[in-house]
Amino acid sequence: MTTTTTAYPLLSSIDDPSALRELDRKQLPQLADELRAFLVDTVSKTGGHLSSNLGTVELTIALHYVFDTPYDRLVWDVGHQTYAHKALTGRRQGMSRLRMHAGISGFPKRCESEYDTFGVGHSSTSISAALGMAIAAHLKGEDRKTVAIIGDGAMSAGQAFEALNNGGVADADMLVVLNDNDMSISPPVGALNRHLARLFSGSTFNAARRAGEKMLGVAPSLLEFARRAEEHVKGMLTPGTMFEEFGFNYIGPIDGHDLESLIPTLQNLKNLKGPQFLHVITKKGHGYEQAEANPILYHGVSKFQPEIGILEGKGGGKPTYTQIFGDWLCDMAAADPSLVAITPAMGEGSGMIRFARRYPERYFDVGIAEQHSATFAAGLACEGLKPVLAIYSTFLQRAYDQVVHDIALQNLPVMMALDRGGIVGADGPTHHGVFDLSFLTCLPNMVIMTPADENECRKMLTTAFRHPGPTAVRYPRGTGMGVAIDPELNELPIGRGEVRRQGQKVALLAFGSMLKPALEAAEELGATVANMRFVKPIDRELILELAAGHTLLVSIEENALVGGAGSEVARVLEEAGCTTPLIRLGLPDRFIDHGDQTLLLAEIGLDPAGIVRTVRERLGDEPLLRTVA
Amino acid sequence: MTTTTTAYPLLSSIDDPSALRELDRKQLPQLADELRAFLVDTVSKTGGHLSSNLGTVELTIALHYVFDTPYDRLVWDVGHQTYAHKALTGRRQGMSRLRMHAGISGFPKRCESEYDTFGVGHSSTSISAALGMAIAAHLKGEDRKTVAIIGDGAMSAGQAFEALNNGGVADADMLVVLNDNDMSISPPVGALNRHLARLFSGSTFNAARRAGEKMLGVAPSLLEFARRAEEHVKGMLTPGTMFEEFGFNYIGPIDGHDLESLIPTLQNLKNLKGPQFLHVITKKGHGYEQAEANPILYHGVSKFQPEIGILEGKGGGKPTYTQIFGDWLCDMAAADPSLVAITPAMGEGSGMIRFARRYPERYFDVGIAEQHSATFAAGLACEGLKPVLAIYSTFLQRAYDQVVHDIALQNLPVMMALDRGGIVGADGPTHHGVFDLSFLTCLPNMVIMTPADENECRKMLTTAFRHPGPTAVRYPRGTGMGVAIDPELNELPIGRGEVRRQGQKVALLAFGSMLKPALEAAEELGATVANMRFVKPIDRELILELAAGHTLLVSIEENALVGGAGSEVARVLEEAGCTTPLIRLGLPDRFIDHGDQTLLLAEIGLDPAGIVRTVRERLGDEPLLRTVA
Repeated sequence: MTTTTTAYPLLSSIDDPSALRELDRKQLPQLADELRAFLVDTVSKTGGHLSSNLGTVELTIALHYVFDTPYDRLVWDVGHQTYAHKALTGRRQGMSRLRMHAGISGFPKRCESEYDTFGVGHSSTSISAALGMAIAAHLKGEDRKTVAIIGDGAMSAGQAFEALNNGGVADADMLVVLNDNDMSISPPVGALNRHLARLFSGSTFNAARRAGEKMLGVAPSLLEFARRAEEHVKGMLTPGTMFEEFGFNYIGPIDGHDLESLIPTLQNLKNLKGPQFLHVITKKGHGYEQAEANPILYHGVSKFQPEIGILEGKGGGKPTYTQIFGDWLCDMAAADPSLVAITPAMGEGSGMIRFARRYPERYFDVGIAEQHSATFAAGLACEGLKPVLAIYSTFLQRAYDQVVHDIALQNLPVMMALDRGGIVGADGPTHHGVFDLSFLTCLPNMVIMTPADENECRKMLTTAFRHPGPTAVRYPRGTGMGVAIDPELNELPIGRGEVRRQGQKVALLAFGSMLKPALEAAEELGATVANMRFVKPIDRELILELAAGHTLLVSIEENALVGGAGSEVARVLEEAGCTTPLIRLGLPDRFIDHGDQTLLLAEIGLDPAGIVRTVRERLGDEPLLRTVA
Repeated sequence: MTTTTTAYPLLSSIDDPSALRELDRKQLPQLADELRAFLVDTVSKTGGHLSSNLGTVELTIALHYVFDTPYDRLVWDVGHQTYAHKALTGRRQGMSRLRMHAGISGFPKRCESEYDTFGVGHSSTSISAALGMAIAAHLKGEDRKTVAIIGDGAMSAGQAFEALNNGGVADADMLVVLNDNDMSISPPVGALNRHLARLFSGSTFNAARRAGEKMLGVAPSLLEFARRAEEHVKGMLTPGTMFEEFGFNYIGPIDGHDLESLIPTLQNLKNLKGPQFLHVITKKGHGYEQAEANPILYHGVSKFQPEIGILEGKGGGKPTYTQIFGDWLCDMAAADPSLVAITPAMGEGSGMIRFARRYPERYFDVGIAEQHSATFAAGLACEGLKPVLAIYSTFLQRAYDQVVHDIALQNLPVMMALDRGGIVGADGPTHHGVFDLSFLTCLPNMVIMTPADENECRKMLTTAFRHPGPTAVRYPRGTGMGVAIDPELNELPIGRGEVRRQGQKVALLAFGSMLKPALEAAEELGATVANMRFVKPIDRELILELAAGHTLLVSIEENALVGGAGSEVARVLEEAGCTTPLIRLGLPDRFIDHGDQTLLLAEIGLDPAGIVRTVRERLGDEPLLRTVA
């Protein structure tokens, strides 16, 4: 028996939810305590999401206790709150390798467990997926139950609305649990949140009644009447009105940390027909003082000492690209009053906090609403302002039509600052930003840049901002080369790359983050290295010049090989009728798992050794001339 | 003076809205009558959208009468209801070349008129764009007003929700006019619509009060109280609750054909601060008997005789690809009970009416909700059903993240039937489906097919349906070659193309719709022609075989050249180290205007003559061997 087992006597007896369901209800609070301690301990060693997981311990226990998982389907939204779910569904041991290469994922993943009914990472998909499952059960005559668990932040995205709108009239028995912690990653914004806040303020009233009691033996239609009557008694307060308008039977809000509320309520809801809606109030970081006090700091954490907590402001080291962007944003805002900045609920992650404090009237956090963010930016641009839309590469996928239809087609000067371009590491395949060069390059009017270092990033941001059409600057997660940064706001010539190393025979055409490994590989290969800078318009002249002076071209990018920057290099060669052979290096045509960024890139062959290997394989025994460094 | 002028004495005096604003209010009903007659006459000659335009005649007059356009901004949603707007803003003469090559667009377009403040074609962008404009006005200290005009169908899309959610709390003076005609293109679905229907049923009550009177001299907060009180009087009825929950000041519903209601209401709303919401009830096709009786038939029309109306069921001729899909859907549903079909509000346009009637429990029209439709399909697939998601290529852009994150990443067997792939003609750049091959091919796990004729389309649909992973069958708008159709449900081998004509020297690699012009060009060129069929996985073996046997390869596709099928052909050649030159033919890197499909394709060089020209130019004076046919 290990120390871990002794520390968690009840938890360690739960190898799957059926064991959980054999526990006496009175034992569940102890299980919750153990689970919470286990999560703090585990995440402090591995890093990962913390606040959200501490907030859903009781809810997770209650759901698995009441529902017959995995036969019944739990569909978690976003999925970063599923560590308790993982620990209770046979993956307790695996948690020690959470988010690590070949370890378990930080999100639900269908191939990882039959309890993970729907893979996730992006927000607001759960109701859609659960509705599909519920309708499938109905069509197949199966009596399984389907539950979507969604946070209040995720509820602000358009897709959740679309799904509620459809779910409220569909012939499906589905339960939506709204996990209302008054905060997604960033503090919430928008009218829906005000609505929820108003409901919550009415919870003094609601606390008096137990949702469980309220439901016993009362048919939904009577309940409906009763609640309407209640609304009148309370005067103008109308809890849940919005959700009832959608056709859901609304129950709540109830305390999501009180198992004695949760379990009977869920038991009753389980047996009701039609679309059900349970509003649960939880607190992010619940039960761990430090996280309760600063849930944003403890949203996603690196390793830390549980008894001390996270030490803030360690600072030092190289700045991240995110910081480079944040600094540039403030500097450019000072220089140009027409700059406005927009984020779909990723102000912190995008490095915009200083800007938001300094220029609150020019800062627009529109909530988890990527589609709206892009068209809203287009609207601002129509009136002569200069919008900077800061968005992670992977989340831009959700605004694709708006980029095509509202920004690119109208040739509006909206600048997109795409953070987390390329492999992001521990968050894995849902979060890698590896398709953006493909899905953006095919759009007319776009100018697309990939900075190779921090200083170039700053220059590109300036270049993009001043360009009178749509632009994207795509930079990777984390730090860069650590070069000195020119404080001026200087531009780069659009569509021009540069030769960074003159070699022979082989020319490496590096895009963005790949310049560094290319330069290292070139030392070995004696190769020429070009820093291409622009994916679009691509530097045609430079490519043809390199093609004329070398026997092999190698394009290198941190994007899907299909349709990426290398595809444009190939097109230049074709159009010029140039037959110098080209090798495209980039991400292979499969989804890349989670794990350490460096490790993953090496596995794919996008490290110096991989580049050398590929070139040598292609050239066979042709001698490579070594240049004198 | 032309007959047209005599027929429309008042209308012909309006060359811009300032002339309209000089009219006496009493003259406006006459103007509406003339405008309506003018629209029926014009559209019967050009074809175009009819029902929606007849429904917004009074609303358009009232908006331009009350607001100081173009200084004040009117942002139309979808934009197919803007013919009256066009006729009143200096484009009356231009209407005779509506939707024709080099004529005026069927949608608002910024480059066409300063009155077209935001280009559109897809739905549900107007509130986002208008909010951006309103906030820009606020920041710039300008007193211009901004109005978004959106239909009830468009209101069901997630983006509209995101924008309302943001707009209700933003510091912006914006008016949203909900044009509630109880129908978008298809009859509406979803809970929101039920909500609107309930409001409408309360209109007996509301009709008694004129919104204009109601507002005079009453501050919003008092109004708010008054309306709440009213709700209590009325019992449970709560008009506009949902919109008020978003933070908008809700007024309505009022009769959208009654200028004496519209004008004073708009005049009052114009001077209110903060987010305003006006609910207007209109009737599609209003004032033209035939269109009122069958607004779906008169939604988008070809030329017809106004006094007779559209003659239904003309039939005959070749079947469209849409019909091929519709027939296949019924046949496959009969053969496989696990088939379910989903459409985001395009049941008619996608050819699903017969299926919907025959298998109502397996037909899911989820409303204008592309995002939800894709994830919902993924949820159905998780449970072993076989979802067929029918969606136009251009609208799939709005579900891109869901295709990546929910379908492709999870490798779920969701089959996408992509209608209107390629150039769509009169609807123009917002509707051309010319990026799908680029944005789908970069996604791992996808199988992508492009049928060259109707029979192949049917086979590909079967192949896709039976494939255990995500698939897309992408077919063009309109009819195909007119080949005989095999009634069986046969498959094609995945990833295999075929040689359709054996020639010499030049090999044309045709994708989908481009087979026909390729075969014709080949007669002239003596070239080999391959029907490639699959964009992904592409037929590597066939490409290398053709490369070995020819001196020039030409890939031909009806998709953006950047990142399309040709890009994959190039990659195969590169990877094999093959130096046979390749020319990629496809759509150039600019947005293609509206106009006749054949004309546009010829302009781009994607007709037989264009293909011949390109090949000859490339080969210079090298002799082309003519094969004996």
